[in-house]
Amino acid sequence: MPEDAAGSAGDRGAEVGTVFLVGSGPGDPDLLTVKAARLIEEADVVLHDKLPGPEILGEIPESKREDVGKRAGGEWTPQEYTNRRMVELAREGKRVVRLKGGDPFVFGRGGEEAEHLAEAGIPFEIVPGITSAIAGPAVAGIPVTHRDHASSVSFVTGHEDPTKEESAVDWDALADTGGTIVVLMGVGKLPAYAAELREAGMAPDTPVALVERATWPDMRVATGTLETIVEVRDDAGIEPPAITVIGEVAATRERVIAFLRNADGGDTGGDGA
Amino acid sequence: MPEDAAGSAGDRGAEVGTVFLVGSGPGDPDLLTVKAARLIEEADVVLHDKLPGPEILGEIPESKREDVGKRAGGEWTPQEYTNRRMVELAREGKRVVRLKGGDPFVFGRGGEEAEHLAEAGIPFEIVPGITSAIAGPAVAGIPVTHRDHASSVSFVTGHEDPTKEESAVDWDALADTGGTIVVLMGVGKLPAYAAELREAGMAPDTPVALVERATWPDMRVATGTLETIVEVRDDAGIEPPAITVIGEVAATRERVIAFLRNADGGDTGGDGA
Ligand SMILES: C[S@@+](CC[C@H](N)C(=O)[O-])C[C@H]1O[C@@H](n2cnc3c(N)ncnc32)[C@H](O)[C@@H]1O
Ligand SMILES: C[S@@+](CC[C@H](N)C(=O)[O-])C[C@H]1O[C@@H](n2cnc3c(N)ncnc32)[C@H](O)[C@@H]1O
Repeated sequence: MPEDAAGSAGDRGAEVGTVFLVGSGPGDPDLLTVKAARLIEEADVVLHDKLPGPEILGEIPESKREDVGKRAGGEWTPQEYTNRRMVELAREGKRVVRLKGGDPFVFGRGGEEAEHLAEAGIPFEIVPGITSAIAGPAVAGIPVTHRDHASSVSFVTGHEDPTKEESAVDWDALADTGGTIVVLMGVGKLPAYAAELREAGMAPDTPVALVERATWPDMRVATGTLETIVEVRDDAGIEPPAITVIGEVAATRERVIAFLRNADGGDTGGDGA
Repeated sequence: MPEDAAGSAGDRGAEVGTVFLVGSGPGDPDLLTVKAARLIEEADVVLHDKLPGPEILGEIPESKREDVGKRAGGEWTPQEYTNRRMVELAREGKRVVRLKGGDPFVFGRGGEEAEHLAEAGIPFEIVPGITSAIAGPAVAGIPVTHRDHASSVSFVTGHEDPTKEESAVDWDALADTGGTIVVLMGVGKLPAYAAELREAGMAPDTPVALVERATWPDMRVATGTLETIVEVRDDAGIEPPAITVIGEVAATRERVIAFLRNADGGDTGGDGA
């Protein structure tokens, strides 16, 4: 396997291509960076999964799209498949955009993909994108930090990878920071971590917001407290992808929503404005 | 003072204008969002300070730029001045872009500005930008989360606002999360918080990276450990604006740097690749 032969350029002796690990932002095509939009335009192949969302994917010609989310065979995991495919295309001399939802380095496996490319000797570039962890709350009127309420913000995964060896998320320590907590992949396990945060001493009336499909045409927001949020989620039927924001900042929404012009489909359930 | 008269439209009876709270990203004009680039183009006035950086500011016609960072008079703080100026211009019917470095809601006072606009009855929109807290590490080859090393990442300010009433940053709790710590405004106080993190039990050989002027033409990166980083900072002469990344993920840089094509001026001091 020639994967460690740095600079080897494929069977046909073509120049090895570059792989761009590109963040798509949360879904609104207008929130692509200027660079991402240009790279997608110029790419030979765009490798993607579902997270960039229908609007962005819909604008990419089908002829150069390849859905690596679907391609999990029996032999490889989707991640192994993606890693091999990036290297293969680059060795054919292709200009490859690996398009990832949000930012490639925020719970996006971008770090693993970068390491794989470097090991295989493929030149690559990182193109940051707007993460849903910040933009999701923002377009709902919620700043993740606030001079009066939060001098830190932590992003955390609600969905621990069961195959992972590392220790679990320390909800106690996160509660102790006193800052905002933003949970990604956190719809299903909401009851578990809401309980852990309360046991860790967080006030039951701590404001919480759920932002589903942020910046997508069918975005929804539901708000409550650490005590009510599970019921709010169930009543509203909130589903992934969604962001959970926990902390005083979540209450900013009701103070600004009347004048906030970001389209957000209005509140769903909960005690939101 | 008519600041609470929702929808009042200024002396000349003009329609009240909209204020766009826009993130510029870390400084590379290519990392503006498509929306930010268009709004800047269409704006009547762009209110900014220095953080968007020379390249982005240099592309905005001087005739519509207004540096609110400079305008601190005797009477108002810069923040009060900015708040008043946004409202004043909107009431004149102007289309106002309030351009902020990085993302407007990450240690950017965007929350306060949104609340002020809502109180004054001015319609506004939030346009997220790429935060330096993620993009700074990223373009240096450092993912802020990593499946094997970090299931959370916390952004924190190194420079506590002395006029602030809230409790200080809890470095102990941040260390206990076990996740990546990204410090903004953290060049000057690096010795203090590096010591606090060590006292909190973080290993002295924890990798640390400093990324100065990320994505600017004169970007610099310096790397070390929790034990050596103060010396590394001093030897390299790292100055604000810079990002401090603390955690195992910081070591990713040396594994990928040989194939990373993001221009970054190379390493300065430290034990980096
Ligand atoms: C595998 S993580 C990838 C995160 C992505 N790299 C980012 O920076 O936004 C997937 C999770 O991101 C969040 N997410 C991504 N896009 C979203 C959107 N448009 N609205 C709400 N949450 C979103 C959800 O929590 C989802 O479960
Ligand atoms: C007042 S905070 C504003 C942060 C901004 N809202 C953001 O999301 O990037 C200023 C701090 O941001 C960081 N910063 C902003 N732009 C940077 C850049 N291009 N490179 C490194 N650090 C930067 C520095 O830590 C600086 O002290």
